[in-house]
Amino acid sequence: MLNYDEKYERYLTEIDQALDRYLNEADTLYQSVISAMRYSILGAGKRVRAILLIEFCKACGGTQQLAMPFACALEMIHAYSLIHDDLPCMDNDELRRGKPSCWKEFGETTALLAGDGLLTKAFEAAASSTAQANLALRAMMELAKNAGTSGMLGGQVIDLEGEGKPVDEARLLKMYSMKTGALINSAAKIGCILAGADEERISLSHEFAEKIGLAFQIVDDILDVTGNEKILGKPIGSDVQSHKTTFVALHDLEYAKNKAIKLTEDAKSILTKFALEDDFLYELTDRLAVREN
Amino acid sequence: MLNYDEKYERYLTEIDQALDRYLNEADTLYQSVISAMRYSILGAGKRVRAILLIEFCKACGGTQQLAMPFACALEMIHAYSLIHDDLPCMDNDELRRGKPSCWKEFGETTALLAGDGLLTKAFEAAASSTAQANLALRAMMELAKNAGTSGMLGGQVIDLEGEGKPVDEARLLKMYSMKTGALINSAAKIGCILAGADEERISLSHEFAEKIGLAFQIVDDILDVTGNEKILGKPIGSDVQSHKTTFVALHDLEYAKNKAIKLTEDAKSILTKFALEDDFLYELTDRLAVREN
Repeated sequence: MLNYDEKYERYLTEIDQALDRYLNEADTLYQSVISAMRYSILGAGKRVRAILLIEFCKACGGTQQLAMPFACALEMIHAYSLIHDDLPCMDNDELRRGKPSCWKEFGETTALLAGDGLLTKAFEAAASSTAQANLALRAMMELAKNAGTSGMLGGQVIDLEGEGKPVDEARLLKMYSMKTGALINSAAKIGCILAGADEERISLSHEFAEKIGLAFQIVDDILDVTGNEKILGKPIGSDVQSHKTTFVALHDLEYAKNKAIKLTEDAKSILTKFALEDDFLYELTDRLAVREN
Repeated sequence: MLNYDEKYERYLTEIDQALDRYLNEADTLYQSVISAMRYSILGAGKRVRAILLIEFCKACGGTQQLAMPFACALEMIHAYSLIHDDLPCMDNDELRRGKPSCWKEFGETTALLAGDGLLTKAFEAAASSTAQANLALRAMMELAKNAGTSGMLGGQVIDLEGEGKPVDEARLLKMYSMKTGALINSAAKIGCILAGADEERISLSHEFAEKIGLAFQIVDDILDVTGNEKILGKPIGSDVQSHKTTFVALHDLEYAKNKAIKLTEDAKSILTKFALEDDFLYELTDRLAVREN
């Protein structure tokens, strides 16, 4: 049996191979946008969303093959959101994961279209699902709702509109649960749905994802204060500098750390209700909370 | 029985009502983006794509209700593409249908997100389809492919990359068939698919749509030379000014007019193979070719 790191590496390789197949269009007339899409998604990122989706699908009796189209769809939606976030009219970021951001490398027009292309391709990938059609359709609804105004995109709007204003805890938690939480939530739920899981397990996966989604975000806030710039790959203290309300700002470092630990433990206790093939999901849950970048 | 204009008016009203229901989210925290989405799609446009989809669905034994989620999805995708096209990094257009374009009214950030929101909402609407799940899934694939890199978006890239360069007829026709043709094509095909039509009728609807899609584009090129600015709602001669290769530029006005007439007649002869409830589609086909805006 593979150990944690070996299994993680294998996931990274196989998800990349699947993404590569979806982004392999031979037509040379529009290669500029395909190149920009590939640049932004291949070989990059932790693939947390895709891996969660595959793991929950397997935990409910499905297979990696069954999960892969939607796993790729989630990664494409995550990548599109980063491309558009980096644009000059949004965060104006020139760097992403240590290399030039998409618009810096390909220009604004191509980056805009590459984001649009990845968002659209996500639904093309999802529509190629080999799951039972009614399950695939339900998964598609989860995907769209969690990516759109009532999910990630709405969370992004709430975040932007809160800039420079006092933000209370209710609003902050709502923003987190939409902006970061929604895609993580949909990952776990879609995995279960595709495998034909019962409503109880779908709902448990949702609870699990809510806890690790919030823990993930709180750890991000902690790292912005205590992190190592080199390992983190971005300057620390940026939240304070941009007057951004974070969980750490509303409470303190100690409280935030304890909250992340509590959420992680609660999440792991939910996992005991699934028939997992190994300890991978437990370890992943731990590592999302105890990480340096 | 309603006459053509009455039926068209009823379609406009009912499509708007359906779109309004999809864009009615009570959450006030992200209303800015919902407002921008509503501004750009409600009460605007000819709804050719939605109407074609509904008409072909009915022609194959389906209902308007069955067609509506995908009809709205197509209009949302069309609207998102216009919002992003108008952005400063694309065409930098300040006017759209006689009023300020989305970014001019709401700012670039909100317009970018409104486009993303409409594209995502399109798939949410489509996923709410009440068609047989396997048919809805196939329709979803058509939608995504025709909106994405191998369809409308790819056509947009080919158009942008051809600016200021000599463009031959093969490339121009390919660009037309992707940029404008793909969504029109998918409208007719999806209508048939949702109704459970056989492959022969799906393929006939495809042929029909290819012809009217090209006729529509050629008439656009003609109107850019001969149109009335007031009725057209935009300056004429803009294609020549921006050194854009058009069908009229490659041939001449007379040839272009005859081509549009021939395509329209051919399209109508395909319609004879469908059991239509009235002459509406024939008249729509004629009016797409003989129009002033």
